[in-house]
Amino acid sequence: MSETVYSVSGMSCGHCESAVTKEITAIPGVTSVTVVAQTGRLTIASERPIDDETVRAAVDEAGYELVGRA
Amino acid sequence: MSETVYSVSGMSCGHCESAVTKEITAIPGVTSVTVVAQTGRLTIASERPIDDETVRAAVDEAGYELVGRA
Repeated sequence: MSETVYSVSGMSCGHCESAVTKEITAIPGVTSVTVVAQTGRLTIASERPIDDETVRAAVDEAGYELVGRA
Repeated sequence: MSETVYSVSGMSCGHCESAVTKEITAIPGVTSVTVVAQTGRLTIASERPIDDETVRAAVDEAGYELVGRA
């Protein structure tokens, strides 16, 4: 079990949170995703550690930018 | 043909614009909808005048608030 907190820029509302949640949830091994637009915090729980670049690609696909680990 | 400009509060991004556009487009008689989140402007073109309360209900359904005519 692994949990990592990232910082994401550009999210402004609940729709943005949903878009990021949808993309991150699609990553194999991810068991839980929490996104808070107001703080830019993205928390991912997974069965095994997820590669940062995989997370970056998913955030980019949703239309936002991964700043890095929080 | 009728065109009315309204002011909507609470929209923050393109997803918000899409949500409002979808609800307003569903109003019978509406022929064109333009929504700009940054300015809060909602412009509706329609075959005949649309009742303000109908517009208000659609904006509310999308999750935002109609301030009034701009």
